[in-house]
Amino acid sequence: MHTEGFINHITALRSLGGSRVWSLMISLFGDLAQADGQHIEGPQLSTIMGLLQVKPEATRVALHRLRNDGWITSSKSGRISAHALTVKGRMESAAASPRIYAEPQDAAQSWQLIILEDVLSDELEGFAPIGPRIYVGDAELAAPEGALTLPGTAVPDWLRLQAEPEHLRQDYVALQETLAALSDALPDASEIAPIETAVLRCLIVHNWRRLVLKHPALPAPLVSDDWPGRHCHVLVANLLARFPRPSLAGMDQRRAA
Amino acid sequence: MHTEGFINHITALRSLGGSRVWSLMISLFGDLAQADGQHIEGPQLSTIMGLLQVKPEATRVALHRLRNDGWITSSKSGRISAHALTVKGRMESAAASPRIYAEPQDAAQSWQLIILEDVLSDELEGFAPIGPRIYVGDAELAAPEGALTLPGTAVPDWLRLQAEPEHLRQDYVALQETLAALSDALPDASEIAPIETAVLRCLIVHNWRRLVLKHPALPAPLVSDDWPGRHCHVLVANLLARFPRPSLAGMDQRRAA
Repeated sequence: MHTEGFINHITALRSLGGSRVWSLMISLFGDLAQADGQHIEGPQLSTIMGLLQVKPEATRVALHRLRNDGWITSSKSGRISAHALTVKGRMESAAASPRIYAEPQDAAQSWQLIILEDVLSDELEGFAPIGPRIYVGDAELAAPEGALTLPGTAVPDWLRLQAEPEHLRQDYVALQETLAALSDALPDASEIAPIETAVLRCLIVHNWRRLVLKHPALPAPLVSDDWPGRHCHVLVANLLARFPRPSLAGMDQRRAA
Repeated sequence: MHTEGFINHITALRSLGGSRVWSLMISLFGDLAQADGQHIEGPQLSTIMGLLQVKPEATRVALHRLRNDGWITSSKSGRISAHALTVKGRMESAAASPRIYAEPQDAAQSWQLIILEDVLSDELEGFAPIGPRIYVGDAELAAPEGALTLPGTAVPDWLRLQAEPEHLRQDYVALQETLAALSDALPDASEIAPIETAVLRCLIVHNWRRLVLKHPALPAPLVSDDWPGRHCHVLVANLLARFPRPSLAGMDQRRAA
């Protein structure tokens, strides 16, 4: 595929939001080079960021920031620099990966309801709030000490509506529409160069991660059939399977064989 | 027992509150003459109300009111009037009797928690409110349509404190102390005339009914060991068993054989 054609494909996804370059870069490293010992070489990174429509100066600023924050480490071997996640960067990426790369069918099937003694001023991690003192979540989650915990039963429709992160509905709808159109428009994986695949995956992961990490994982019985986040999850999983992660070594070819 | 001695025994119970004569009379008829065909004769009623320290004029006013409200019907057979519950009066008494005369050990052993979709402006009959939209009650109760219902599990202490009708605690404490003292002070049932037994039972039932009908019945797991209502229940049940309901026919003797 011509570079221009590829960029046309990803424009909608690129402009969905989440345009902070350092955050985009975390998505990239997390997807492409999360394992210990993996790095992205300077020229590869420049090409990828260029395809993401990020200017070289913005890439330099973001790299600087990520190094200062302890996410990325850069080294030089001869004239080629290599950028890698730090231990902290790898740990943070690894912590988020189960949510980001979960298969839709792996969602928890059983849930629990929790009643707290008092109103909580903060969030209750892992649980979705339903009302004052009332939370629902995966049955496997440890409840806070002293809470009343009850295994989930038949779920009325209104409970799903209250458990779903309604404030993210429009964002999920936008992502769903963009991914659906992209999925229809994209050619076979063999038509896309490995480095373009890296860019495509980066954008998919980035836009998905921005939403899915903003709310607790809901067990399947607590999600409505037409919740856009459910559709996004299926689209993301299908696209990531259809365009597998390229190897860093083989990425310098501009086009697949 | 001399009349004066008996009146001394019941003074504390008589002065606990709930002094509306018509209400006292409903307690009396409900305990003594609830069955179809039963009536209390005018002279018996006068003696009983006298022992309850109610003046004849107040008795007449209350009788008049209860007739107007359709609770009591009065008839005359020769020179003797007879007062009985109406069909409505018997039905209302019968509806309240299971709560009033329940044995403490008959309390429900299993409970349920209910979450409503919205905040309810009214009470949810039979259920105790725990917080906005959260209710607990007997597992056998029918939940409102559309509610999320969950079988009860292990009960944290705070849940009992929130389920108990805290606003009635002081009234239950006062009743408990009075009944405990009365239970210690009272002589054998055989030392008390049948009509005095009727008066004693009327006051016990009256003061118990005033509290127990003001809140839903709580399943046993939801009641703290030291909840004063629990102690009252045991005292009431023991006293009513120790001083059985006299027969209306045998009540004209001033003293038991």
